[in-house]
Amino acid sequence: MRPVAEIQDEGMRMRSEREGERGGGVRIGIVTVSDRASRGEYADRGGPAVRDYLNEVLTTPWEAVARLIPDETDLIRDTLAELVDRDGCCLVITTGGTGPAPRDITPEATLAVLEKELPGFGEAMRAVSRPHVPTAILSRQTAGVRGAALIINLPGSPKAVRECLDAVFAAVPDCVDLVGGPFLETDPARIKAYRPHG
Amino acid sequence: MRPVAEIQDEGMRMRSEREGERGGGVRIGIVTVSDRASRGEYADRGGPAVRDYLNEVLTTPWEAVARLIPDETDLIRDTLAELVDRDGCCLVITTGGTGPAPRDITPEATLAVLEKELPGFGEAMRAVSRPHVPTAILSRQTAGVRGAALIINLPGSPKAVRECLDAVFAAVPDCVDLVGGPFLETDPARIKAYRPHG
Amino acid sequence: MRPVAEIQDEGMRMRSEREGERGGGVRIGIVTVSDRASRGEYADRGGPAVRDYLNEVLTTPWEAVARLIPDETDLIRDTLAELVDRDGCCLVITTGGTGPAPRDITPEATLAVLEKELPGFGEAMRAVSRPHVPTAILSRQTAGVRGAALIINLPGSPKAVRECLDAVFAAVPDCVDLVGGPFLETDPARIKAYRPHG
Repeated sequence: MRPVAEIQDEGMRMRSEREGERGGGVRIGIVTVSDRASRGEYADRGGPAVRDYLNEVLTTPWEAVARLIPDETDLIRDTLAELVDRDGCCLVITTGGTGPAPRDITPEATLAVLEKELPGFGEAMRAVSRPHVPTAILSRQTAGVRGAALIINLPGSPKAVRECLDAVFAAVPDCVDLVGGPFLETDPARIKAYRPHG
Repeated sequence: MRPVAEIQDEGMRMRSEREGERGGGVRIGIVTVSDRASRGEYADRGGPAVRDYLNEVLTTPWEAVARLIPDETDLIRDTLAELVDRDGCCLVITTGGTGPAPRDITPEATLAVLEKELPGFGEAMRAVSRPHVPTAILSRQTAGVRGAALIINLPGSPKAVRECLDAVFAAVPDCVDLVGGPFLETDPARIKAYRPHG
Repeated sequence: MRPVAEIQDEGMRMRSEREGERGGGVRIGIVTVSDRASRGEYADRGGPAVRDYLNEVLTTPWEAVARLIPDETDLIRDTLAELVDRDGCCLVITTGGTGPAPRDITPEATLAVLEKELPGFGEAMRAVSRPHVPTAILSRQTAGVRGAALIINLPGSPKAVRECLDAVFAAVPDCVDLVGGPFLETDPARIKAYRPHG
């Protein structure tokens, strides 16, 4: 509640992302996990897809804390922990590394820092993709909470990023509330935040 | 099979719950997990919702063994184990404590006493709620077997209790059969028990 | 890629299964897990159902490596490991032992040899069966990868074998590609292999 509440008290309900994602607001970690993108062999497309999505959907001022890292378990784990524990992110979204290939280890690294896994996220994201993308079942993405933050894995493809976020985002603000994070507001024309707890 | 078989042999097919839930019948544990309800800060609504549901659906004589306890891991774990091991419950249903909040630890406490997890219960309950309750994905409820008993977690809200039981109850009698528990019969007008194993 | 690539280079695109499942091709393990079938108390029906299904669907030459074993954790675990590590199977399909009964321990034995679990397989198989088989939620079947192989659990009933394979098989060739196994081709009139990774 802290940063956003203060900003709201001051009537600063500007959409920070339209002003360059500076000037405070809640912090959201965006972690692209990719050996090749982190070596510059190709452009990171998953991270920007997450950022664009959040810009469209969130009306609460927010600031992206972006990371682009290779598929290394320790590095992913430490990056996620730092984004929550040190940088105060209330939401951390990873993209990439969720498949069955040997270097795909994002879910394991995520589980290592979660205090509670929320299996419904992975189930919902796979279920929504399954009818038209049979290989959705190969994605091992999960989600869960650490401290006052929600961490969500997404696949690496920009199309899957949007589809998966659409499948779960209505529940994100309530989850962040429940773990003691800031009050996130969405554009109801895009995603209506569902808040059964108030 | 023991208590029910004996009762059936004697032709005592009365619905025990209509006679005050005494007089034998199979035992079913109903465990409300809530800090506030257990301190009397508000009335337990989940436990009565489970009981009403079972009264509607079961035609086998049954007796409720009800517990109202706070969100404490050890207490939940010990309560579940006692209801199965000492009290002979063939089915134990918990309500509450399945969310992402710091005090929600019913699934972990349940896993600690399960011999086998049955992930299909949580999947089915979340899937049935997801289309109209986006926050269904936040519920971490699971189920599984311990000895000759099935243990099922439900969320705390009475509406969710009914919806989730409707999603899984047709499989409950077969599961209890398979683990060596008593033969549970349901009112087919309400829930038709599915018994592929005979 | 090795065995199939060699066969293809030689223009030997015969469907090996129609010639008695000999003469090379990729190897696929089919493991029936059943105390009673392994003692000869009744015929194994799950294993033949898997074999018939693969014969219908795969156009890549393949060879079955079949096993019929009792519900013993160590034996299942060692059999699965051998089929992958020693016999070079790129796909191993088990049938039976996925339920809640005390002797049903195939999923645990499978997890013991998996390097990565793929929870989407179990979710998809249960979800597809759930609408017409309420007890589908009792099946604890899972899947995952070990080395260059995909291991999939199926229930024991021939009907469930086909239904579950139909629910997931379009993703099998891509998964085997991703873990470094051979290039599996299917009859697109039966199952169109989905290969987003090329």
